[in-house]
Amino acid sequence: MKALLINCTLKPSSEESNTEALAEVVADALREEGVEVTSVRAVDHSIPPGVESEMGEGDEWPGIRSQILDAEILIFATPTWLGHPSSVSQLVLERMDAMISETDEKERPVAYNRVAGIVVTGNEDGAHHVISEVSGALGDIGFTIPGQAWTYWNKGPGPGEDYSETEEGHEWSHSTGRAAAANLLAVARALESKPIPAPPSE
Amino acid sequence: MKALLINCTLKPSSEESNTEALAEVVADALREEGVEVTSVRAVDHSIPPGVESEMGEGDEWPGIRSQILDAEILIFATPTWLGHPSSVSQLVLERMDAMISETDEKERPVAYNRVAGIVVTGNEDGAHHVISEVSGALGDIGFTIPGQAWTYWNKGPGPGEDYSETEEGHEWSHSTGRAAAANLLAVARALESKPIPAPPSE
Amino acid sequence: MKALLINCTLKPSSEESNTEALAEVVADALREEGVEVTSVRAVDHSIPPGVESEMGEGDEWPGIRSQILDAEILIFATPTWLGHPSSVSQLVLERMDAMISETDEKERPVAYNRVAGIVVTGNEDGAHHVISEVSGALGDIGFTIPGQAWTYWNKGPGPGEDYSETEEGHEWSHSTGRAAAANLLAVARALESKPIPAPPSE
Amino acid sequence: MKALLINCTLKPSSEESNTEALAEVVADALREEGVEVTSVRAVDHSIPPGVESEMGEGDEWPGIRSQILDAEILIFATPTWLGHPSSVSQLVLERMDAMISETDEKERPVAYNRVAGIVVTGNEDGAHHVISEVSGALGDIGFTIPGQAWTYWNKGPGPGEDYSETEEGHEWSHSTGRAAAANLLAVARALESKPIPAPPSE
Repeated sequence: MKALLINCTLKPSSEESNTEALAEVVADALREEGVEVTSVRAVDHSIPPGVESEMGEGDEWPGIRSQILDAEILIFATPTWLGHPSSVSQLVLERMDAMISETDEKERPVAYNRVAGIVVTGNEDGAHHVISEVSGALGDIGFTIPGQAWTYWNKGPGPGEDYSETEEGHEWSHSTGRAAAANLLAVARALESKPIPAPPSE
Repeated sequence: MKALLINCTLKPSSEESNTEALAEVVADALREEGVEVTSVRAVDHSIPPGVESEMGEGDEWPGIRSQILDAEILIFATPTWLGHPSSVSQLVLERMDAMISETDEKERPVAYNRVAGIVVTGNEDGAHHVISEVSGALGDIGFTIPGQAWTYWNKGPGPGEDYSETEEGHEWSHSTGRAAAANLLAVARALESKPIPAPPSE
Repeated sequence: MKALLINCTLKPSSEESNTEALAEVVADALREEGVEVTSVRAVDHSIPPGVESEMGEGDEWPGIRSQILDAEILIFATPTWLGHPSSVSQLVLERMDAMISETDEKERPVAYNRVAGIVVTGNEDGAHHVISEVSGALGDIGFTIPGQAWTYWNKGPGPGEDYSETEEGHEWSHSTGRAAAANLLAVARALESKPIPAPPSE
Repeated sequence: MKALLINCTLKPSSEESNTEALAEVVADALREEGVEVTSVRAVDHSIPPGVESEMGEGDEWPGIRSQILDAEILIFATPTWLGHPSSVSQLVLERMDAMISETDEKERPVAYNRVAGIVVTGNEDGAHHVISEVSGALGDIGFTIPGQAWTYWNKGPGPGEDYSETEEGHEWSHSTGRAAAANLLAVARALESKPIPAPPSE
């Protein structure tokens, strides 16, 4: 069983990412169960905006797309900006939009039988909305979203500390993240055992 | 395998519901696969607003709650008003909110191992958002949302005809609804075969 | 200058409302500037679901509708449930939906030249989204939403205390609420002085 | 009176933008009233992701930021992808996030006394949500959102034609766009005449 953690922080790898720090809790819980977890920080790559799987020379999306399709579990991690998923999140979702019409050798949309979970951090309120936005989009693309397959961290009201600047609330976020990992793995295994078939021909 | 179709139209049963008409396409597709489908129109019942499972004399929610927990598949159907799920939808979700802290005999949240799909109609734009809002809330409660487990119908731009006033676009909505039924059933069976266990103790 | 505070808590008046407690900060700031503020708790009234201004015997919405149209400023206050505006909020918005096609004696939609602000409380994350949902709907109906005309209170991550159970964060929420009151009043006065005319005939 | 039209299409200027075509209806209606309208297509510029006003060598955001602050009216135009505002929209909003804490010579947030309207196109459902998301964010930053200051075009259900591929529904979208222009201009003039003062000191 493989998982891909895609971190949609705005910060390049030269800077520490709060989102990654929390997402690693979910990743570690999966590793403890024997899942092979790979990570990618989208902003480190050259990904032109668009809704196609390949957009020409210099486009690094095809490599990330392969990593997504090589894994049964997707951990989608994003910060909250203005109460929304980051622009990098939306860029990634737009490129994934092409998957809606791409099918595997059994005529199933390529995202079928994959599960996705969401990790959100922020220095202000917004996580529930971000989770709904991202899981709605991933469900549209064909991912199955297990119950309670998310965790988040922020503290309100108003703008405040970042995740890495305090320990407050970490316990709840970590325990929720470990439950998310367990639910992702359980549903991934259930679908591996009894996969969703191709949609009925119309 | 059982399914409950909860219709969150604003209209009492004396009036025809467009939402029901489209939701029945999903219900019929499940029935063809041998699923026993029960329907409830929430607005016909006395459901006081609140976030508890039982709210005293005259509260008809406990009966609906039992129907939800008696089924492995939930079809959540709602019209779109002002681009949002209906007030009746949110009333139902609020009463379901209590399920977050209710567990079964195996210490699992009661919604675990149940799947949910969403059906949306409207005389104006909004379905994708309604699907995200409802599936986000149901995922929070513990339902698993299979990939592409929804259908919708509306025609833009601006306010226009209702679903029952035209045949335009019905074919797409029906075919998408039949795929939703297939995906709901496939994931319900996978979870029946390999259920999600209780979350890890913290 | 008049303001109406509509409180969309799920709790009847026999119970204390956290939402009202925070909304009163905005109301008080308006009163200090000479604005006459009236309050209504929607859940205390019999308001059948629907999208018409009058829905027959026993419908108490017409009285609330008159209060809305008698005021230049609307303070829309709601709790957060499952990350969404309350069902009572959506019920109120649905009944207000009829205003989109109701015009005054100058052929202007009846909500034109009125301003609206939003107050949100919750025991969990969601306020920014609730503000976007409510202000989007009110803008659709014709209300003008002044910049920074909202305040909120919640503390994350995860479910926690209610507003009235702690003093933490109140200072930020109150100061933000007083700014919201000032912005509501300033824009209401600007529109009183130079009103929006009827939309161009098509 | 000046307006800036910021087009958040994913397509560079070598390709035609449906969003621009509809946004030009609003721009033209403003020009007819003597407003000077400038346009910028964000994706044509090098704008690194972040939440600061200046992000170093090669960052072309500062020039766009100046254009925004040089205008009293902002027309924010975006396509719909996966039911959301485009990634370019969110990138622009993130860079505008810095304006929340930037003040003018009278200690007012720099966006105060500016108005914003929203134009949305899509080949599928989502416009109302996009309008709520964008107007919520702009209101957070300090822009005033006049009542009914938006227009949109899409046709459902399901993915379909683009705006430029049909004439269907254009009339409604154009007439709604002209009303949006009138409302933007009316509120901009009202605020010019009676500006919002600095928020009360805490």
